Amino acid sequence: MRKTGFHERGTKDFINIDPLQTGGKLTEDAKRALLEWGDGYSVCDFCPGTLDRIKTPPIYDFVHETLPEFLGSDVARVTNGAREAKFAIMHAFSGCKNGKKAIVMDSNAHYSSYVAAERAGLEIFLVPNTGYPDYLIEADAYARVIEEASQKTEVVLGLVTYPDGNYGNLPDVRGISKVCHDYGIPLILNGAYAVGRMPVKMKELGADFIVGSGHKSMASAGPVGVLGMKDEYAEIVLRKSGKYGIKEVELLGCTSRGVPIMTLIASFPHVVERIERWHEEVEKARNFSAMMEKIGINQLGEKPHNHDLMFFESQILYEISQNTKSGRYFLYRELKKRKIHGIKPGLTRYFKLSTYGLSEDEIEYVINSFREIIDIYT
Amino acid sequence: MRKTGFHERGTKDFINIDPLQTGGKLTEDAKRALLEWGDGYSVCDFCPGTLDRIKTPPIYDFVHETLPEFLGSDVARVTNGAREAKFAIMHAFSGCKNGKKAIVMDSNAHYSSYVAAERAGLEIFLVPNTGYPDYLIEADAYARVIEEASQKTEVVLGLVTYPDGNYGNLPDVRGISKVCHDYGIPLILNGAYAVGRMPVKMKELGADFIVGSGHKSMASAGPVGVLGMKDEYAEIVLRKSGKYGIKEVELLGCTSRGVPIMTLIASFPHVVERIERWHEEVEKARNFSAMMEKIGINQLGEKPHNHDLMFFESQILYEISQNTKSGRYFLYRELKKRKIHGIKPGLTRYFKLSTYGLSEDEIEYVINSFREIIDIYT
Repeated sequence: MRKTGFHERGTKDFINIDPLQTGGKLTEDAKRALLEWGDGYSVCDFCPGTLDRIKTPPIYDFVHETLPEFLGSDVARVTNGAREAKFAIMHAFSGCKNGKKAIVMDSNAHYSSYVAAERAGLEIFLVPNTGYPDYLIEADAYARVIEEASQKTEVVLGLVTYPDGNYGNLPDVRGISKVCHDYGIPLILNGAYAVGRMPVKMKELGADFIVGSGHKSMASAGPVGVLGMKDEYAEIVLRKSGKYGIKEVELLGCTSRGVPIMTLIASFPHVVERIERWHEEVEKARNFSAMMEKIGINQLGEKPHNHDLMFFESQILYEISQNTKSGRYFLYRELKKRKIHGIKPGLTRYFKLSTYGLSEDEIEYVINSFREIIDIYT
Repeated sequence: MRKTGFHERGTKDFINIDPLQTGGKLTEDAKRALLEWGDGYSVCDFCPGTLDRIKTPPIYDFVHETLPEFLGSDVARVTNGAREAKFAIMHAFSGCKNGKKAIVMDSNAHYSSYVAAERAGLEIFLVPNTGYPDYLIEADAYARVIEEASQKTEVVLGLVTYPDGNYGNLPDVRGISKVCHDYGIPLILNGAYAVGRMPVKMKELGADFIVGSGHKSMASAGPVGVLGMKDEYAEIVLRKSGKYGIKEVELLGCTSRGVPIMTLIASFPHVVERIERWHEEVEKARNFSAMMEKIGINQLGEKPHNHDLMFFESQILYEISQNTKSGRYFLYRELKKRKIHGIKPGLTRYFKLSTYGLSEDEIEYVINSFREIIDIYT
């Protein structure tokens, strides 16, 4: 019982620059939805047997009309998260039957893509990036790795991370999907940092599957994700139970049976609207990057940058950490003092952050804080 | 965008007798936790790499100290739900490698146990119940089915539902686990309707795994579940990624990365306390059952009953449905008029309900409503 009960969140009023969190802050409507639908299994009052067919609240409309249009897919489902969506696809394709099958994915992929493939029993071949300082993932590299992998085993899926969660790079998905299709391989687009932040349509980019994260990028409470696919793959990934004819096996019958899906629906109009303003977010990120470079903190990854998630390298902060009593935690502590949260405690030389949703004033405050911290210690 | 945004829940102020929902109503502390931790990925402010090791908020203490003691297990984890916990166990055991493996489960099992086994690629052998009117699951029947299944394939797991979600029967888990162990098979206890409502300890009952549901029976927002196991099975079910050494493959690295786990922790002291009063809930259910029988609605399943979830058979309500304009929806509508929610629209002859957490006055009101409805139509 120790430490159970209600707990406060210490960072609640901080300026948040954690890439994991900037796109998942709730709207006012989502907060209202929390209290309205907080009780366990609240969305199941009028369940006809599966989550996606519930009409009160209007989950049916969301899953079967709104979401496919939004994702640019034929079919869509709500899942427990992006990783659970990726695993459902991979598990459906691995079959666990005719020996080892493989997936080819970018080496910038999120760990959960890798772990989902491991769980599905797929052999994993990684497409290398171009290395320091850009870490780009190129379509030609997919061709080379698929060739190589196909010598050894049957490649059944490709995956590309758009953007990746380290550098915020946006690879050429059209080119990569063309390569995959030349080899007869369907492509999964992991859009956990794209769907809900920026314009992205699965079919326009040539992908066969798309996954997104509600809690990461769609202003939703976690855990919740979205999954879109082409019609032709629905019978594989959404195959039904042999005994319970309406239950989709890879979704274990139902997924987001609770309040997160209602926050997703509540925030949706805001999410659609904010995507229209994506160019402002990119501009903000580029300005931030330029200002950081002026104080000697360099952005790695694509330049000019095309996403709010940025990776920085800082020789100066690293050197300070070597010469101060607080050691490598000094940066975390100094930022905490200034009510800025989001850079992992202990990091100084390499760190990522996100400017998503920050106001101009907040951006300026963050930059000034970095400048001030460097000044204090040098 | 049609029908997105905030939605009201029409049944919010109703007396709820839906077995799916009576144990999942939030406490006041859980409601506060909703708003405090609503933002996506909010629990990950100070994540050291996996959910169960987060110390702020104190998820580490909950998962590694409180939960194993509460479940009577050696090891515990929080999952996205009971079904996801069952699948993790089954998937870890199916191996997808050395040909077909099998699971033996009670025929009263929840559909999600069956679908989880299908998804894991396990062959499924069902232990029959004793049929009308008690539908009991007996230990001897497990022995017969395991014998039979073992002729054809390798049985790697047993599962028993305690209680089942149809009749609310509590089978002899000690006897069943003894049978399973005689055949060298570990037993999963599906306690989705037990854990958080009534006293239940995995090892005392002889089981090897236990799963519970936060949103069903632990006063939590969904989706969230708990998983307990014996030490000896942790290395199978909680095996680590080959590349990302701290990530547990079957949990895809992390599970309940959001607000549901904080409602679980917030409600926990209340849950512990209410379990102490379980005998009152049983008494209430028995009284309710007796009063229903007085008005010609008969309880099936174990008698005297040992759980708040009860299954009823009603010839009289069925006959009314045959002779009224509203047809089989009359009962739903009459109950709705009286602000009682929880019997599926369209059911009259057979239905289940739960008296969990209802006050004496509410119980009386529900009984009187049934009586009144029968009087009106006969």
